[in-house]
Amino acid sequence: VLVEGRHFRRDWSSARDVGHRAAAANLADIAAMGATPTALLVAFCAPPDLELTWAEELTDGLAAEAGTAGAAIVGGDTSSSPVLTIAVTALGDLGGREPVVRSGARPGDRVAYAGRLGYAAGGYAALSRGLDGPLVLVEAHRRPIVPYRLGPAAATAGATSMIDVSDGLLADAGHVASASRVGIDLDSASFAVPAELAEAARALGTDPLGWILTGGDDHALLATFPADVAPPEGWQTIGRVVSGDSGGGSAGVTVDGHRYEAGPPGWDHFR
Amino acid sequence: VLVEGRHFRRDWSSARDVGHRAAAANLADIAAMGATPTALLVAFCAPPDLELTWAEELTDGLAAEAGTAGAAIVGGDTSSSPVLTIAVTALGDLGGREPVVRSGARPGDRVAYAGRLGYAAGGYAALSRGLDGPLVLVEAHRRPIVPYRLGPAAATAGATSMIDVSDGLLADAGHVASASRVGIDLDSASFAVPAELAEAARALGTDPLGWILTGGDDHALLATFPADVAPPEGWQTIGRVVSGDSGGGSAGVTVDGHRYEAGPPGWDHFR
Repeated sequence: VLVEGRHFRRDWSSARDVGHRAAAANLADIAAMGATPTALLVAFCAPPDLELTWAEELTDGLAAEAGTAGAAIVGGDTSSSPVLTIAVTALGDLGGREPVVRSGARPGDRVAYAGRLGYAAGGYAALSRGLDGPLVLVEAHRRPIVPYRLGPAAATAGATSMIDVSDGLLADAGHVASASRVGIDLDSASFAVPAELAEAARALGTDPLGWILTGGDDHALLATFPADVAPPEGWQTIGRVVSGDSGGGSAGVTVDGHRYEAGPPGWDHFR
Repeated sequence: VLVEGRHFRRDWSSARDVGHRAAAANLADIAAMGATPTALLVAFCAPPDLELTWAEELTDGLAAEAGTAGAAIVGGDTSSSPVLTIAVTALGDLGGREPVVRSGARPGDRVAYAGRLGYAAGGYAALSRGLDGPLVLVEAHRRPIVPYRLGPAAATAGATSMIDVSDGLLADAGHVASASRVGIDLDSASFAVPAELAEAARALGTDPLGWILTGGDDHALLATFPADVAPPEGWQTIGRVVSGDSGGGSAGVTVDGHRYEAGPPGWDHFR
């Protein structure tokens, strides 16, 4: 559910962008279970003075993003409300497969991701400082690019667990670690930091790895695969599952063997 | 989607009642397609100062109503918002049957309903005048009693169309008439007006048939059956499908052969 002022600002995102984001956030959840998205249901609450074109463009964005994922809007509800609110439910088809859940990671598994990491966080950082670029990052904040087909591809390849990265890589890896009662160790050297991300981070005086590890809203997919399974094309290995049950949160996730919350030198900007 | 101040008032309904209504309104839609409800997804938006017990009791009501229908809450989302808002999506299982839709009514079919009609409207009328009774009607406004199992029963018996009565009998019969490109004639003598409804209407100086024909929110089921099919137990025949395509709305619905919008003598209180 997206609430104006909490999840989006009409002066930062167009109605079409909000539609794309609202749909993508839900469709990514379907892909992250290994299913192919099929349908969206949308509850739309708006103040009576909302311009009709805003609602029409929102619908265009929802429908376009659904189409990208292979789904369609099939129903919903509308109401007037003092607060612009959009609640989306996504449905999908597992094609007879079992769903890939968060609890299936096993020690020794590879950890891999597909999609983009840190872009939306970089865009948010830029917008928060009143900048309207770099465009690729600002656009990423407004409209995520989700690798929908790589979810079912990972499931077919034998992924043991999967999640979409909406809260941030460390946080969502923590959800997998917690549900699977394992630890996850990420290898910072395995992240090829894209040049456009590195450049923008330098301009804003920050470390791009911070955006990659803690930035949310890109809706990349994060999965674990058995050690003898090569992740499908589009997936990049970034770590491995280790034994250990931290008891929850991102406490079970380490980077280069160090606990995130231990705050080793140079890591303070993630706190 | 239910928005505080539009669809419910916290001084008129308890949190548990709101949960029952929010669930029932969606579960009834599933039953009205001939399906057995299986699951609810709930998006819940609340102001930060909402008492925790209100949210807990809402959940109790949602879960209890889902249980009555044979379903369970399986997921959803929460957010803070200035306006208390509850968006519910219901899922169901057709058991291999085709869904019963609004467009299947054929001239000659019987029209029948199951459940209660006019109770919620009577309760609303009482509450609007500052009364807190009759209890059975006020309770009906707060918490509908939906005959969930009679939806799939009607489908199995061969219902040609079905809808739940949320807008009012004439309005929802109009939706069926419009979608099926037929007319519907209701027989006012076939409505056995319950004594409690007649008594409350007398006390408030109105005609109980007005509540029955135009009152919404009881979520009775309305269906059409082929003339040679006896509606299952729990269904009462109240009219028949006639030929004619009115072009939409309740224009295609008549009561005792008279068009509702023609306003025959004695019918002004429905306008």
